Amino acid sequence: MRKTIVHILKEEPKGHELTVKGWVRSFRANRFIALNDGSTLNNLQCVVDFENTDPELLKRITVGAAIAVTGNLIESQGGGQAVEVEAKEIKILGDADPEEVKKTILSPKRHTLEKLREQAHLRVRTNTFGAVMRLRSQLSFAVHQYFQKEGFYYVNTPIVTGSDAEGAGEMFKVTALDMKNPPKDEDGNIDYKKDFFGKETNLTVSGQLEGETYALGLGQIYTFGPTFRAENSNTSRHLAEFWMIEPEVAFCDLDMNMDLAEDFIKYVIQFVMDNCQDDLKFLENRLIQEDKSKPEAERAPMPLREKLKFVLENNFKRVSYTEAIEILKNSKPNKKKKFKYPIEAWGADLQSEHERFLVEKHFKCPVILFDYPANIKAFYMRLNEDGKTVRAMDILFPGIGEIVGGSQREERLEVLQEKMAALDIPEEELWWYLDTRRFGSCVHSGFGLGFERLVLFATGMTNIRDVIPYPRFPQNAEF
Amino acid sequence: MRKTIVHILKEEPKGHELTVKGWVRSFRANRFIALNDGSTLNNLQCVVDFENTDPELLKRITVGAAIAVTGNLIESQGGGQAVEVEAKEIKILGDADPEEVKKTILSPKRHTLEKLREQAHLRVRTNTFGAVMRLRSQLSFAVHQYFQKEGFYYVNTPIVTGSDAEGAGEMFKVTALDMKNPPKDEDGNIDYKKDFFGKETNLTVSGQLEGETYALGLGQIYTFGPTFRAENSNTSRHLAEFWMIEPEVAFCDLDMNMDLAEDFIKYVIQFVMDNCQDDLKFLENRLIQEDKSKPEAERAPMPLREKLKFVLENNFKRVSYTEAIEILKNSKPNKKKKFKYPIEAWGADLQSEHERFLVEKHFKCPVILFDYPANIKAFYMRLNEDGKTVRAMDILFPGIGEIVGGSQREERLEVLQEKMAALDIPEEELWWYLDTRRFGSCVHSGFGLGFERLVLFATGMTNIRDVIPYPRFPQNAEF
Repeated sequence: MRKTIVHILKEEPKGHELTVKGWVRSFRANRFIALNDGSTLNNLQCVVDFENTDPELLKRITVGAAIAVTGNLIESQGGGQAVEVEAKEIKILGDADPEEVKKTILSPKRHTLEKLREQAHLRVRTNTFGAVMRLRSQLSFAVHQYFQKEGFYYVNTPIVTGSDAEGAGEMFKVTALDMKNPPKDEDGNIDYKKDFFGKETNLTVSGQLEGETYALGLGQIYTFGPTFRAENSNTSRHLAEFWMIEPEVAFCDLDMNMDLAEDFIKYVIQFVMDNCQDDLKFLENRLIQEDKSKPEAERAPMPLREKLKFVLENNFKRVSYTEAIEILKNSKPNKKKKFKYPIEAWGADLQSEHERFLVEKHFKCPVILFDYPANIKAFYMRLNEDGKTVRAMDILFPGIGEIVGGSQREERLEVLQEKMAALDIPEEELWWYLDTRRFGSCVHSGFGLGFERLVLFATGMTNIRDVIPYPRFPQNAEF
Repeated sequence: MRKTIVHILKEEPKGHELTVKGWVRSFRANRFIALNDGSTLNNLQCVVDFENTDPELLKRITVGAAIAVTGNLIESQGGGQAVEVEAKEIKILGDADPEEVKKTILSPKRHTLEKLREQAHLRVRTNTFGAVMRLRSQLSFAVHQYFQKEGFYYVNTPIVTGSDAEGAGEMFKVTALDMKNPPKDEDGNIDYKKDFFGKETNLTVSGQLEGETYALGLGQIYTFGPTFRAENSNTSRHLAEFWMIEPEVAFCDLDMNMDLAEDFIKYVIQFVMDNCQDDLKFLENRLIQEDKSKPEAERAPMPLREKLKFVLENNFKRVSYTEAIEILKNSKPNKKKKFKYPIEAWGADLQSEHERFLVEKHFKCPVILFDYPANIKAFYMRLNEDGKTVRAMDILFPGIGEIVGGSQREERLEVLQEKMAALDIPEEELWWYLDTRRFGSCVHSGFGLGFERLVLFATGMTNIRDVIPYPRFPQNAEF
């Protein structure tokens, strides 16, 4: 196969001829080509003997062009790089008309992230998005590495689901019917029996319930796949389509679940610290530059890698919901009425302003909140002996808010049935889920981690639309 | 964390006390519990001191029940296993009423695969499906391992797409509109501007086009995610929702693409041969048993592991479409009119009967067909200099048929535009795809591999609905 630049810069012995292919990032003084092939942030310098090169060819060495350079790999004569290629032969593989390039984000000047988003098909060729997407790839590999080494099995839960009882949010409908003239039944309702699946179907909001059925067979499993929310959330923290990681473990209680989540997050962050230093360093500097134009209060409290190190070196603070409410009730912003939603009593749902206060002002570290009031949490969460709280946990991260939501699951058939009845969830729809509580039920737990929020945290990017190749959000499904 | 049975059987030192949790697979003579926790095919034998155990407890040790056993791990007194647990204490974690179990596939007798499919939420607790799903998990990890070690970046292409020009098949629609009363525009058409994404959207049939944009930035990428077909294919080889692996490589021609595909497939098969011997052996025997009830012509030509070894040890036969047509035209079944679709002339599309003849009768090994007629292949494939064939390749496997479809992509802007015009694919819809040919285009290639077909091949299962946890097919989206 082709020799990549990451390989050439790190491992290739000097003093012999090679051919390297990539895209021109810059061409200085008709002499120095900075060549990039996406395998690394770093460019390979190729030095052109311009006096002996066809001027017509020189003109075509422009920003964005794809070229092949053949020559000796030698110790660099200038500063700034260890090695360079002494070009003997240059081939233009694909031109990039400078007049056309000027109209795009490939032009060598500073572009806003908004502008880059409009040209999402080209933005991966910039340093920032190259770094983000390489890091995303490494993070996702770390996810698989972690669970596989721990003996978890990877499970692909269904994307199209006939159930709408998962309760995690608004769902998109999936249909193969002619939407303009759908078949109707006798009552004038749409006849979904004639649809592809013979019933109404939606895009999944979570693979948890199916994941539980597998955990109760294989012991410990994880999912890592796309999930969907048809919610009109036009924020920098929400996507309509995002990737979620959902481990589910039999014979595991909430404490073990918290241990697992913390260990997992630290492993994947350590993995990118070990494997992505170049990209992390670049993103750290990018953030420092970006922050210069912001008011001090909005700047990142510490440099990117320091922040990641901080997470690695500190225990996540575990705090019950009840303790958290006390802290919030007595907090300065609550007393000074600075919260949009003042905390008045136990039972209040926590808003992002409260989570941020706890994480960023009060504890100043990742926080695991647990034992929430039952009535603000989902039906499948294990009811505590107090009868009013459930064994739920949320992990809150600085700058991100909720990154993990999990719980010990209600393993008792009767309690689960009562809860479902109270919430009008028909048993017929979740008969298979209830079956898991009929045949060898056991204490089990799991959590969901929104992968893009993790990428956001690890890259220091501030908008979730910038950490997935082609973001989906209200009014946008371009590309 | 909990000690799993795979760990206890392999690595745990004997002679000390431990607690193991799992589900009862059988309970013989009030004495021998076969305990399984899903971590391995193998059960751990737990020996009960029934004379000193509460008879009420003994009654609750039934097939399917979840229990915890505490006792010493000792060398087994009987044959059939190396170690066993001398139970000191047994706790029932979750009962399984034998009368209820009888009505399910958990009951200890032979059930048909159809029956198991109806109880897909329980089938993973059987030996067969435990083995299949562990193998599936290992295969998917091998996929990531392979590409990551080769320097590929993992890319998540979008699932919801605004484009319907990918041309790989019928698409499902995605909408958040009220389907019964959708908003209409002045002409009486559905007003998709009012839909969530502001336009008509579908479920992706392939991430290739978006993958190409990333390959032309990061150099070499792969996707591994769900794809969809709204086709009424009620066969043992098709799913409406399946997982696809799509690598895409810049500066890579069709020959390198074939090398990549062959090397990749061999790697992942070697990986399961190295890591899944217990499950493979079980599945091999299962298939031998199943085949006994079949006419000889329908039986697997060789045992499962021998078949996998055969793939590892032999080069895939590379044959041009033109050569293949000659072979087929002169073949016995063609001359004797045994083909449903007789091969008369160059240009014919190959049917599965032809593919099977080539692979199973003629070459008797995996076959790569390449250089197909342009008019039976997709618009984005590289036109050869002959003006009538394209640089496409399909890999055909015995018993499976097409497992890989790939091509070198048309990198020339004008040729691509002409093809799109001829097929009425509007440029406005794929402006971003065409851009990749405007700015540093280059020779590049990729392929798609249907993951479930690979699992089918590696497990020896015969119906694709049995190698994915919750299969989606016409009239079925249960669970």
